[in-house]
Order: sequence, then C-alpha cells, then structure tokens
Amino acid sequence: MKKTGIVPTRDENYAEWYQQVIRAADLAENSPVRGCMVIKPWGYRIWETLQSKLDSRFKSTGHQNAYFPLFIPLSFLERESEHVAGFAKECAVVTHSKLKLNDQHRLEPCSPLEEPFIVRPTSETIIGESFSRWIQSYRDLPLLINQWANVVRWEMRTRLFLRTSEFLWQEGHTAHATAEEAREETLKMLEIYRDVVENELAIPVIVGEKTASERFPGAVSTYTLEAMMQDRKALQLGTSHFLGQNFAKAMNISFVDEDGQKKYVWTTSWGVATRLIGALIMMHSDDDGLILPPHIANLHAIILPIIHEESKRVQIEEYCLNLQQTLQTNAAIKVQMDTRDLRGGEKRWQWIKKGVCCLIEIGSKEVESNSVTFTMRDAINQKETISRDNFVQRLTDRLESLQRHLFNKALCARDMATIQVANERDFYEFFEQVGGFVFGYWSEDPSVESRIKNELKVTVRCLPSKYAEKRGHCLFTGKTDCPLALFAKAY
Amino acid sequence: MKKTGIVPTRDENYAEWYQQVIRAADLAENSPVRGCMVIKPWGYRIWETLQSKLDSRFKSTGHQNAYFPLFIPLSFLERESEHVAGFAKECAVVTHSKLKLNDQHRLEPCSPLEEPFIVRPTSETIIGESFSRWIQSYRDLPLLINQWANVVRWEMRTRLFLRTSEFLWQEGHTAHATAEEAREETLKMLEIYRDVVENELAIPVIVGEKTASERFPGAVSTYTLEAMMQDRKALQLGTSHFLGQNFAKAMNISFVDEDGQKKYVWTTSWGVATRLIGALIMMHSDDDGLILPPHIANLHAIILPIIHEESKRVQIEEYCLNLQQTLQTNAAIKVQMDTRDLRGGEKRWQWIKKGVCCLIEIGSKEVESNSVTFTMRDAINQKETISRDNFVQRLTDRLESLQRHLFNKALCARDMATIQVANERDFYEFFEQVGGFVFGYWSEDPSVESRIKNELKVTVRCLPSKYAEKRGHCLFTGKTDCPLALFAKAY
Repeated sequence: MKKTGIVPTRDENYAEWYQQVIRAADLAENSPVRGCMVIKPWGYRIWETLQSKLDSRFKSTGHQNAYFPLFIPLSFLERESEHVAGFAKECAVVTHSKLKLNDQHRLEPCSPLEEPFIVRPTSETIIGESFSRWIQSYRDLPLLINQWANVVRWEMRTRLFLRTSEFLWQEGHTAHATAEEAREETLKMLEIYRDVVENELAIPVIVGEKTASERFPGAVSTYTLEAMMQDRKALQLGTSHFLGQNFAKAMNISFVDEDGQKKYVWTTSWGVATRLIGALIMMHSDDDGLILPPHIANLHAIILPIIHEESKRVQIEEYCLNLQQTLQTNAAIKVQMDTRDLRGGEKRWQWIKKGVCCLIEIGSKEVESNSVTFTMRDAINQKETISRDNFVQRLTDRLESLQRHLFNKALCARDMATIQVANERDFYEFFEQVGGFVFGYWSEDPSVESRIKNELKVTVRCLPSKYAEKRGHCLFTGKTDCPLALFAKAY
Repeated sequence: MKKTGIVPTRDENYAEWYQQVIRAADLAENSPVRGCMVIKPWGYRIWETLQSKLDSRFKSTGHQNAYFPLFIPLSFLERESEHVAGFAKECAVVTHSKLKLNDQHRLEPCSPLEEPFIVRPTSETIIGESFSRWIQSYRDLPLLINQWANVVRWEMRTRLFLRTSEFLWQEGHTAHATAEEAREETLKMLEIYRDVVENELAIPVIVGEKTASERFPGAVSTYTLEAMMQDRKALQLGTSHFLGQNFAKAMNISFVDEDGQKKYVWTTSWGVATRLIGALIMMHSDDDGLILPPHIANLHAIILPIIHEESKRVQIEEYCLNLQQTLQTNAAIKVQMDTRDLRGGEKRWQWIKKGVCCLIEIGSKEVESNSVTFTMRDAINQKETISRDNFVQRLTDRLESLQRHLFNKALCARDMATIQVANERDFYEFFEQVGGFVFGYWSEDPSVESRIKNELKVTVRCLPSKYAEKRGHCLFTGKTDCPLALFAKAY
C-alpha cells in the first residue's frame, strides 16, 4: 500500500482526513472551551492574507472600517422578530459583572446585570442603532461600513473552521436611499466575494439566491456562494443580504430625502468568515496534506539544504541563502530556508503537509552544476532539476500555473459530479447512490424542500443567478414555468 | 474673544475639551451598551495604521499571530490567585446559552451552562493552557505569540479610548527556557513600544518598572511607558510583564531541557490598546481640534478647490486633480480632494478639526501663478503661498518637520512641568499647586504610596530605567540608598 502523509485518506474517511490535514499542517485545534477553536500561527497567517485581499477590495469600493460593541442588549434583538427567532436558540448570554469566591474556594458569578446582553452573533441591530443616529439626511447616504470582528453562535455540532461557536469574520453593513441602490450593493459585494473566492482561493462557486427557508433571519433576499467539496457535498462560503426596510424600521433608521420627505433607509449586510479557511483546506488538499493556492499561500517556496558531508555545509548553505535572496527581490514571492538539524526526508514531509507550493532541495550536485532541484506541491513525486537562472525566471509562472491548475481541477471535479435531472426518481437515485450537485426545475414549494431534507438530507442550495431566466417543469410536481434550482447535501 | 474650533478650550475644561475634540473629529462615540464605545471610521483608521506599525515590528522580531477563545472557564482563572483577585471584580460573566420569550414577550436567558465563562479580560490563562500542550521540549522554545483581540473589563467610570469596558488591543505571550531570556524579551518589547510611541505617535515617554502595588496581577515585574498629557497628568501607554514561572506553574507549562530535566518555562506578556489613540488625541490636539503626527495621520493633505466664479470651476478642479495625482506618485503621502458643495470656510474647519496635516487651498490666483497656498495643521493662521514645484518637492520635509515639532513640543511641555524634589513639603506644595511629574528618591515603602494616593491622588508611576543606578535619601523618610521614582497624578 502506498504510504500517504495523512492517515486516513480521503477515500477511507473524509471527515477524519480533514481533521488530520489540519493537525498535520498545524493550522488550528479544538480548545477546552466548548466549540471554540484556537487558530494556530500557520492557520492565522492564511486569515491575515485573506483579510488583506478582502479589505483592499472593500476599501476600493468606498467602504470604511469601524468597530461596534461586542454586546447586544436583549431589547435590541427583540425589535426584529425573525431575527430573534434565528439567533435566540444559540447564543452566549452575559448576566453578571463580577465573580466572588464561595465557601469551597470556587468562583461564582455575582452582581447580576439589570438587563442581560448577548455576545453578538451578528451586528445588524447594534450597528443599526448607530446608523439611526448617524443618518439624518440624504447627504449622509449611502453609508458603507465594514467591521472585522469575532462573533459567537452557540453551535451544537462544531468542526474546526467550518462551524465553531466563536469565529472571526467581517460583516458589511450599508444603508441606502433607494431599494434599487441597496440591491445593487448586495450584488456588488457578492461579486467581490466571488472574485476573491475564485481568483484568490481557486474555488469555483455557483452564485445564486437562497430560498425563503434558508434566508438570513430578517432578510428580504439572501444571496450565496456555493462550492462543491471533494466529497461532493456543498459548502456555503459567503452570503450577502438585501434587508429591505426591515432593520430600518426595527431600529428606526430614517432620513430626510431631497424632496423633504422623511423615509426609512434600505439596508444590506454581507459577511465571510474563517469558514473560508475550512473551504480552502477541504477543496485542494490531498492524501499527503494541505495544498494552498499560491495567491493565498503562507509560503511559496521552502529551500532545504541537503547536506550529506559536513565539509560541504558552508558551500551549500551559502548557495541556498543566495538563492533565497535572489527570489526575495521579487516582493511577491514568499520564500524561506529551513536549516534545522533534522533528517532531509522528515523536513520535506513537514513542508509538504504544510502546503508550501514549491519544495526546493539543494545538495552538492545542484551547487556544482548551478542548478535547482524542486517539486511543485501538487505533484510531489515529480522532481525536476533545471538551471538556477531558469528556475528563478520561471518560478512566478510555475506558481501561476499551480493557481490555475487548482482552480481547473476543482471545476472539473465539480462538473463531473453535477447532473441535471428532470424527474424525482432520477433525483432520489442520484443522491442515494453517488451524490453531488443537481440542477432541476422546482416549483418553490416548501413542502418539497422539507421532504427531501428529511428523506435525503438534501437542501436547495440556491436558485443560480446564471440561470435566472430559465423556466421548466418542476421535477417533483410537473408544474410549469418553474425556476432552476441547485440541490445538494451540504455542510 | 478668539473663536476656537472646540468649545470649551483646554484651559476652560480639559476633560470636556477632550470629549469635544473626539466628537468634532468624528472619531468615536459612547454606545448604548454601558461603557462600550463605537469606534467610527476616522478613529478606526488610526487604529489600522497603528496596528500595521506594531505588527511589522512584532513579526520582524520573530513573533507570530494566532487567535485564542474569547471565553475563559472560571476554573482556569482560579489557578493563579493574584490573577483572579485582579480581574474578578470587573468582568462579563456568560452563564446561559439560549434565550426564550416570556409571557410579557420579553427575552430572558435560559439553558444555564454547567460551568460559566468570563469574557477574556486578558489571556494569560487561556493561552497558557495551549502553551502547556504546544511545549514539550527545549526545541519548542522560545514560543513567541501575539494576538490582536477585543477584551472586556467591566469598568465603572469610562472615558472614550482611555478606559472602556470593551477595548481592542494586542497581547503578546511568550515562553522561554530561562529567566534571563524572558527578562530580555520583556524589555525588548517595551523598547518596541517606546519606539512606536515616540517615533510614530510623537509622544515622549518615561520608561520604568512599576511598584508592587501597580504590578499586573500575577506578574513578577511590570514595565511601563508613562507620558505626560497637556493637563500635566500621567497616562500609562503600554506595559510589558515578566511573569516568572507563576503562570507556567498555574497552567503547567513545562519542557524537557537539553539536560533531560523537566522544567517550568518562564513567560512574558505585553500589550497596548486603543487607549493609545486616546493618548494621541490628548497629547497633540489644540483648541481647534485634533492634530495627528504625520506618521500616524489618516490624511497628510486635503486639497480644497476655492471657486468664486462658476466659469473657473473646471480649470481649478483640473489643477487640483493634477496636484493630487502628482502628490500621490509618492506612495507615502496620503492625499485627498474635497469637491463637496459646501462653503470653503466650513470645509476648511471640518478638516482642521479632523487633524489633517496640511490644508491646501487652490483658487484662480494659484492656478494663474502655478502656485499652492497651504497651511500646516499646527499653525493654521499662517498661510503660505509658494510655487507648485517647490511645494511638491518640499511636502515630505514639511511633514517630517511637523512630526519632529510635535514630539519636541510635547517633550518641552513635559520638561517644563517636571521637577525633582528632596523633601515632603515641596512634594505636597507642587502637587497642591500646579502638578506635573516629580522625580524623587523613595524608600519603596507601600504606606507612603497609599498615603499620597489618598491625600493627593498621586501615584508612583514607575522607577525610571534611565536612573536605575541612582541612589539617594528618601524624600519622605530620609532613609538612605533609595531609588529614584517618578510621581504624578494619573488617568
């Protein structure tokens, strides 16, 4: 049997493979606080890169960052009834402001608060309260705000990065004078997410609108990005909500328009979270561990000096250092050298599992022939040796190829596991046998939605925007003039 | 009476002036959540710049960012008794994980947690718990971690930026094999803080060690940066703690050393917070509003087109745009143009109050003579007109001069308000009359400390490192061979 970096392999146990990839790459771990994770340095570095990719796009489209309180008074939540219903079942409630030692020398809460707070699960209400004071006139609109923050949802079943009780995210909140402008903003931010996810994370997505049952609590429309993981299940990567005037009315956000009339604003909100790191791991990694697309990778190249004779050490390390410095003159290339006193094979495996894009091995042979031996992470058994100059010149291209290759591979896998079905029998058969993405016309009947959820664990992922114009016979009911929907099992 | 941008002036009411500077610059506001603030975009932008200045220095000294849970189990806190005592009196306690609607249709907490959590006031214990698993061998040391996060301390009296129930900060946590190395790290990070505060924020500081009564709960030694504000009161800007083996023992962080022996590690922690923004505001602003040192400023230059005749609009705006583009070719210069339809005077005041370093006014006269009329923020009544080329060439120098000038002005004010005293009568007289910084020899007797605190509201700010070798007669007791201390009233 072929030895793999990760045990078990994807085929053997996909869920456990995912955990082991994270452990082997040292990305994150479960904490002693139920459902909360510790994001370790190698995982956090991915988040920092992702933040900078998103943040620059938010800023170049006129959004400004701000910061709002962690705590939300219960009275704010109460104002939007759907919103309450959506978040009341899983939240962290702060009820006391002191601790005292009891007779058993254990700490216990004291000084109960007059009004308890919840730790924000999302900030529509608390930010809306500020908006109600900041916005007076049409001149104050549009108001385009983003917040980088931690949020808490007391999830029952958690999984590193994909679903944790506390997670890091950004949440955009905007207010507009007209519904049209707010709808435009909702879709503009969805497009920014698509751009980052496809072009930086190399994850192909299907963009569309959520059905009523999957909408954000309090939203009029929720748009989503859906990706297919290697186990053929869907993962929702980001959402953008058109909130209509629901929160404007609940939080009393109004303005005097150019015509002198007092009107409620139209708001949007949109967010992506550390879940994207989970998607990245699940999407590209293989049975040897993490694979990261170059645009988001922590390290593009690691240089490993291979020293068999001590007498050659200085010469080899100098050659490596010189190569590192040459590569670093290109600011876009992240390169490091590993001089730790460890067996070459062991070192190499560590970096493979950590998802470094290009592994460079330099021994006497390379020094003597002024060459570089390297392997790209997606083909670790294909060592190449080329002249040093050639390597230096071509590394950027090789990284771009890897980026494209990862995207295309994912796209290809998705397309191979996607079918269009026209009747219920084929629908059931597909999900009972292999699973994947199904496109099918659907009458938007919620009872069908709940039946397939109960019987197959399949949900409507979205009504894909690309096919918004298409109409056909409902695959379940035969009803005519129905929109095309995307169905899948999902995380 | 001279009209000022801010009412009241510093002389009239310093505390209220501070609030009004913040309001006029639109930096932050109090939120409906007791003691928590909203950091508005203009305030948050300062924080982003400050973060990048600090973060790059942390990384270049080998620290890595990571993220740990927001919640700390009470059982963790209990393990370090001084630490508990320090934080139990003001904390947010999470006791429930659900809300339900009661008969009055109001939300109330339900599903009590088996063990309550507190929202982190600082993370020594929760990070220590991870360290206890991450560190096994001397090869795992030093471990150099930093976290950017929000923390909560349920403060009774709050003031925007300076003291809020929730604040943003970074907290460094490191573990070392030897006490010596940990002490070195403690001082290295203190020096990084001094560098940032003096060279980027233009705030002169006195660096020293805290007395036992002002130490971080659980620390062996706490080092601090102390600055003097314009009202002659001290503000503590950042602290760095040598924690000895207190947390190592409490959280069981041990390693097998090169000699095969199991030993406890030596740890440090160090942090600065959004309080630094408060310091920045208090330190440099004047009766016309915010002044920001160029190294940390949101905007170096604002270009205001002054249009008296509509027929000249296009020509003037083109000239402005061209000037903006020329200035922007220097990536280090942050410049913007304000074409809003507002009176010139009103616009100018808005930007003065927002602390833009250089105000540029361009009318027909400037366009015709190919010149620029401008004022620097620290001398808004001195308009200068020079040739456009000259201005473009010299702006960077002018900004550097402003940076130096603000530092020197602050240093000068501090020195003017600092005396050395040799006896108690002079000490009391100084603080009863003018106040400021007092250097004096002191026997380290805690009873003196509590007396001057009660009688004068004066505290020992630190034992300044610069004078660590100096010894003299205690100004209170006459005892010989005492170290020199810095005394002041403080925020």
